[in-house]
Amino acid sequence: MSMSAVDVITTKRDGGRLSDAQIDWALAAYTAGDVADEQMAALAMAILLNGMDAAEIARWTQAMIDSGDTLSFGDIGRPLVDKHSTGGVGDKVTLPLAPLVAACGAAVPQLSGRGLGHTGGTLDKLESIPGWRASLTLEEIAAQLADVGAVICATTPTLAPADRKLYALRDVTGTVESIPLIASSIMSKKIAEGTSGLVLDVKVGSGAFMKTPQRARELAETMVRLGCDHGLATAALLTDMSVPLGRAVGNALEVAESVEVLRGGGPADVVELTVALAREMLALGGITGVDPAEVLASGAAYPVWEAMIAAQGGDPSAPLPVAAHVETVTADRSGTFAADALAVGVAAWRLGAGRARKEDAVQAGAGVLLLTDPGAPVEAGQPLLELHTDTPGAVAGARAALDTGVRVLGEPAGRPPLLLGAVQR
Amino acid sequence: MSMSAVDVITTKRDGGRLSDAQIDWALAAYTAGDVADEQMAALAMAILLNGMDAAEIARWTQAMIDSGDTLSFGDIGRPLVDKHSTGGVGDKVTLPLAPLVAACGAAVPQLSGRGLGHTGGTLDKLESIPGWRASLTLEEIAAQLADVGAVICATTPTLAPADRKLYALRDVTGTVESIPLIASSIMSKKIAEGTSGLVLDVKVGSGAFMKTPQRARELAETMVRLGCDHGLATAALLTDMSVPLGRAVGNALEVAESVEVLRGGGPADVVELTVALAREMLALGGITGVDPAEVLASGAAYPVWEAMIAAQGGDPSAPLPVAAHVETVTADRSGTFAADALAVGVAAWRLGAGRARKEDAVQAGAGVLLLTDPGAPVEAGQPLLELHTDTPGAVAGARAALDTGVRVLGEPAGRPPLLLGAVQR
Repeated sequence: MSMSAVDVITTKRDGGRLSDAQIDWALAAYTAGDVADEQMAALAMAILLNGMDAAEIARWTQAMIDSGDTLSFGDIGRPLVDKHSTGGVGDKVTLPLAPLVAACGAAVPQLSGRGLGHTGGTLDKLESIPGWRASLTLEEIAAQLADVGAVICATTPTLAPADRKLYALRDVTGTVESIPLIASSIMSKKIAEGTSGLVLDVKVGSGAFMKTPQRARELAETMVRLGCDHGLATAALLTDMSVPLGRAVGNALEVAESVEVLRGGGPADVVELTVALAREMLALGGITGVDPAEVLASGAAYPVWEAMIAAQGGDPSAPLPVAAHVETVTADRSGTFAADALAVGVAAWRLGAGRARKEDAVQAGAGVLLLTDPGAPVEAGQPLLELHTDTPGAVAGARAALDTGVRVLGEPAGRPPLLLGAVQR
Repeated sequence: MSMSAVDVITTKRDGGRLSDAQIDWALAAYTAGDVADEQMAALAMAILLNGMDAAEIARWTQAMIDSGDTLSFGDIGRPLVDKHSTGGVGDKVTLPLAPLVAACGAAVPQLSGRGLGHTGGTLDKLESIPGWRASLTLEEIAAQLADVGAVICATTPTLAPADRKLYALRDVTGTVESIPLIASSIMSKKIAEGTSGLVLDVKVGSGAFMKTPQRARELAETMVRLGCDHGLATAALLTDMSVPLGRAVGNALEVAESVEVLRGGGPADVVELTVALAREMLALGGITGVDPAEVLASGAAYPVWEAMIAAQGGDPSAPLPVAAHVETVTADRSGTFAADALAVGVAAWRLGAGRARKEDAVQAGAGVLLLTDPGAPVEAGQPLLELHTDTPGAVAGARAALDTGVRVLGEPAGRPPLLLGAVQR
């Protein structure tokens, strides 16, 4: 008897271990279309509820890598280091980080995705820059890495196609929140990409997939183990996502804030996280004697940003798109400004910054702009935030989302600490 | 926001209760194609692993009934009583039972299905009779119930279409073995059928879905509660399926054995179960003063069988198809004959009596014929059973299946008791 999808599903359903042969067969057959979506959905739910052990996760990851190509950029004369964030609200850190790390001497091949739901996508943000294009050939990526040192572009369809198919399936079947499936999805792509060092930014809090530090640490440890076992030097930071990162949430709004950071200014939390991740990436790349905090503050990363944007057809000096309609929300009392990450993320999404389905378009100018820092004291009547949208009909829904977590509190409440921990092998 | 499939799935995934509105929406949207197969597969796996409470099961069943038509045969002058078996190996009891109960004064509208896997299907068995047809219109069913008192025919596509679609999905996604899903599947069809009394034959043992008496009792209690709560008088027997029922396993082989029983002979276990189920059906129909054991032994049910077969185009006196190839298996030692139900069922399936996919055809003559009773003493060299098939290449696979559970034991071992318990409201 040949292998059967039902046998694989019932093995995991009944709490058993999947054998190497079952994992290899299931993912190859799913990629080829011989295991149906409904069968993989049942298997994914069984994995979510019954788990996988470390050896199963490693084999699952390898089988996803083996479903497609692996990249190699050859010797470009610099260490290749990469960063991945599990996704948050206002998390534009990739934009200043890649030029910064390149300015410090490493090369950053940042293959990125688009946003879905309340978390934004790096490519959506950069596409608000007039002329910028996300799709590059492998030759273009390699040339830009050698010339500029930093590339942020779309991932290629031949990289881990099993993951691409499974990710879309999990999104519609309630099977996203599984640590084995999240870890293998991220790490299969990053290992296949051919980078030599990887820093993971694992978000914790209301705006993140991982709502508790315990779950975030488990995910981080799983991914660091997977990377290191595959010969990819991997480290992880656990960082707060209970409030938005920075003050801008939305595509062009986040590009503008990133440019401020690259010019030596910008919100303190965005700077802090950018520098912390840069330090980890440079350490993995073996680059010493350069302080990324100093480089960033000096504005020396900004020319790398300009070169990176221009190399992909973008005009870094062109004005960014602005929304047709802007509304200001003011404080209804005096107290402390509280802004929950999920509430702000959903509001920005409803204003047009994000998409509900992957076919949907996003508005370049839409989003939420905080006018003061979460945790700061505010006076009654003070402007708290702006809602930006091309579709004024969306404002009511955005305000309803804000009502779930943006308010003025009677008691003092500072911003929670940003850096919550680190995981190293 | 309208209801979303992911919300329904994650509610059950995270151990919550599905609301009435969630259940109604999910099954209506699934029937309409607005909830995709992969979404329902994930939900079915979450239900299998996290369960449903009695109120959820009742609502789920009602929503499946509401997905289609409900039948009513009007007043045909007799009580309408029906039987459903959860499926076993050699379980041909419907064939003698329907004419017997009709001969005792009730009417039996037996809407049946085809076999899948190692358990046979009633329609497949009857289709081995030359000329017999399974598909009847509602008018034909009603007329035959009034004239003959017994109908065994195909279920109609408009009866519980949600169940029809879900059943096919569960079959390929490893989500069959869920008591809430099994109970709601069976009872939605039976309630929609419009019968006034229902006896359930819940099988226990290797050849049944329910492997333990505990699981079988839970399923029986769930179904009896569902039926009675819907105003359908329902009772259940728990019966053994650790050995095949009777000596014949396969379509025409089982028809021949059923005819023996209808003529007053046949294997003792088939007679015992047929009479026990008939007693329950007559009790639910309020028919007293007639002993189905006497009616069966007298042969008085046989003319009803002839009329029932003839009414659907069959020739009850025509010779039944026989397989092109017959092989005999003999005892390799002296001892006690042991025949595991699953082993015999899989062997008959591989010989061509059953199908692996619902598109497959079955062989009318194929199957396994036991030549002595399980539990009986045998001598070395004595013929134990015959393998019937039109495809001799299938014999090796059938023998491999038999090797898993058909053998001669050193110690005595009688047939296990057939009637294991009863469940009544």
